[in-house]
Amino acid sequence: MSQAIITTLTVVGVGLIGGSFSRALKAAGAVERVIGVDQDADNLALALRLGVIDEVAPSLAEGVRAAQVVFVAVPVGSVTAVVAQAAPFLPPGCIVTDGGSVKEELVQACEPLMPADTFFVGGHPIAGTEHSGAAAAFAELYQGRRCILTPTAFTDTAALNLVRSLWQAAGSRVECMEAATHDRVFAAVSHLPHMVAYALVHAVARSAEEEENILAFSAGGFRDFTRIASSDPAMWRDIALMNRGALLDMLDRYSAEFNALRERVATGDGPWLEEFFHTSKRLRDGIR
Amino acid sequence: MSQAIITTLTVVGVGLIGGSFSRALKAAGAVERVIGVDQDADNLALALRLGVIDEVAPSLAEGVRAAQVVFVAVPVGSVTAVVAQAAPFLPPGCIVTDGGSVKEELVQACEPLMPADTFFVGGHPIAGTEHSGAAAAFAELYQGRRCILTPTAFTDTAALNLVRSLWQAAGSRVECMEAATHDRVFAAVSHLPHMVAYALVHAVARSAEEEENILAFSAGGFRDFTRIASSDPAMWRDIALMNRGALLDMLDRYSAEFNALRERVATGDGPWLEEFFHTSKRLRDGIR
Repeated sequence: MSQAIITTLTVVGVGLIGGSFSRALKAAGAVERVIGVDQDADNLALALRLGVIDEVAPSLAEGVRAAQVVFVAVPVGSVTAVVAQAAPFLPPGCIVTDGGSVKEELVQACEPLMPADTFFVGGHPIAGTEHSGAAAAFAELYQGRRCILTPTAFTDTAALNLVRSLWQAAGSRVECMEAATHDRVFAAVSHLPHMVAYALVHAVARSAEEEENILAFSAGGFRDFTRIASSDPAMWRDIALMNRGALLDMLDRYSAEFNALRERVATGDGPWLEEFFHTSKRLRDGIR
Repeated sequence: MSQAIITTLTVVGVGLIGGSFSRALKAAGAVERVIGVDQDADNLALALRLGVIDEVAPSLAEGVRAAQVVFVAVPVGSVTAVVAQAAPFLPPGCIVTDGGSVKEELVQACEPLMPADTFFVGGHPIAGTEHSGAAAAFAELYQGRRCILTPTAFTDTAALNLVRSLWQAAGSRVECMEAATHDRVFAAVSHLPHMVAYALVHAVARSAEEEENILAFSAGGFRDFTRIASSDPAMWRDIALMNRGALLDMLDRYSAEFNALRERVATGDGPWLEEFFHTSKRLRDGIR
């Protein structure tokens, strides 16, 4: 056991992300006490019973009163509301950080909510499984996975360093990035592919209403390719709304490529098509 | 060993598909002798050395002269040309079948090429690996995999039954389907997803030229999601050209869904987005 980095951590939203952060820090000896806050009383009781957390707080206000660090691990659309509700009860020196997968709008909204002598650091751990809830949490979730922190001109350096050291203790490789850059990167590598997969499932399913053989043959590669269309609808609604600007830009870049391809299929331009597919293959195979 | 179904099979194109068909039938004792024809003399010599085939033919004409069944396993865009070249040399009673992944245009083109007392049966085994060439062929490739045969009003029933029994001997589950139905089904579950993935890789790679962080974060889910964009460019050029009609229909159905989604992202319509994502999840999870 290394020496604890902090004494008291409060996790708001003790699900896979929040619960695994708690378990990882406890396993690393990086925190002495973890207090859990959750709207779902059953989930919170389960978290306590499983040892994911050490104490249950009766309310958000009570939960954050003694916290050195608060980790807000609620759906990305609810982070700002949680920070606003918690703000009046934060003790001096308290650091609030989050795990939301869209950052610019969220960080801009949260920073002004913070009382004097409290600090906000935006974060996004790149990890997850298809499971959720406290029972799904495990200490190794963040091992070797990246965690992006998005400091601004207003971010306190000591607070940033402390949040970084916690994520490192949890096993993450921490990188700092501008919030707007983060949102452009994830619009490209994650949010756009999800939108593409959701639209694809709709198109194929609609066609399957006319041609039932389609459904029978969907079980192969199509099912694998569209796995991400099975992601949580409320979470993706929030991401699409909160990262609208960067996502629209990527949707339109994609549309331009797709429409160009469609035109060459329509005109039967073999050499163009082969070159387009060849470039895709080369680009994709080049990703390491 | 069961009794052989046929004495002599000629495989034109001794790669993964043709070579595995040969290996599977030999392993099942369903054929006595397999003759190989291939443009690539080195590949053909390798096929003979590895026991994928029993004999090498010096030319297509020589290769088919003694064949009871000819399996044309060349790229889908070359099947018709091979059938046209082989036709004058086919012995009476000979059955020609193929493994092309687009069927309507191909079957319509091949049927009129067949001399009297020879038969054509279109086929499409739904199997493959990322490897190619005779060395990649293995007897189990078709085990439990579907093979679609696309008979027409002109198809000889005895020829159809014989081709079916060969694919069953190779381990396939054989289904018959109209060629046009086949092409609509695969436009939906395979050809459209490939086009979507190719366009997606282009869009993201173009953006990565401006924002290098995108490339660094492409290694995760994006890389998995776009695996199919790594498929053989010449093969997909042929598929896009030969299945143009059904593919364009699917491209346009998909565009309509994608554009509707884009508009709701632009207007920030949360309830619509959640419902759209929820429907996708339900439809996709319903595929068994």
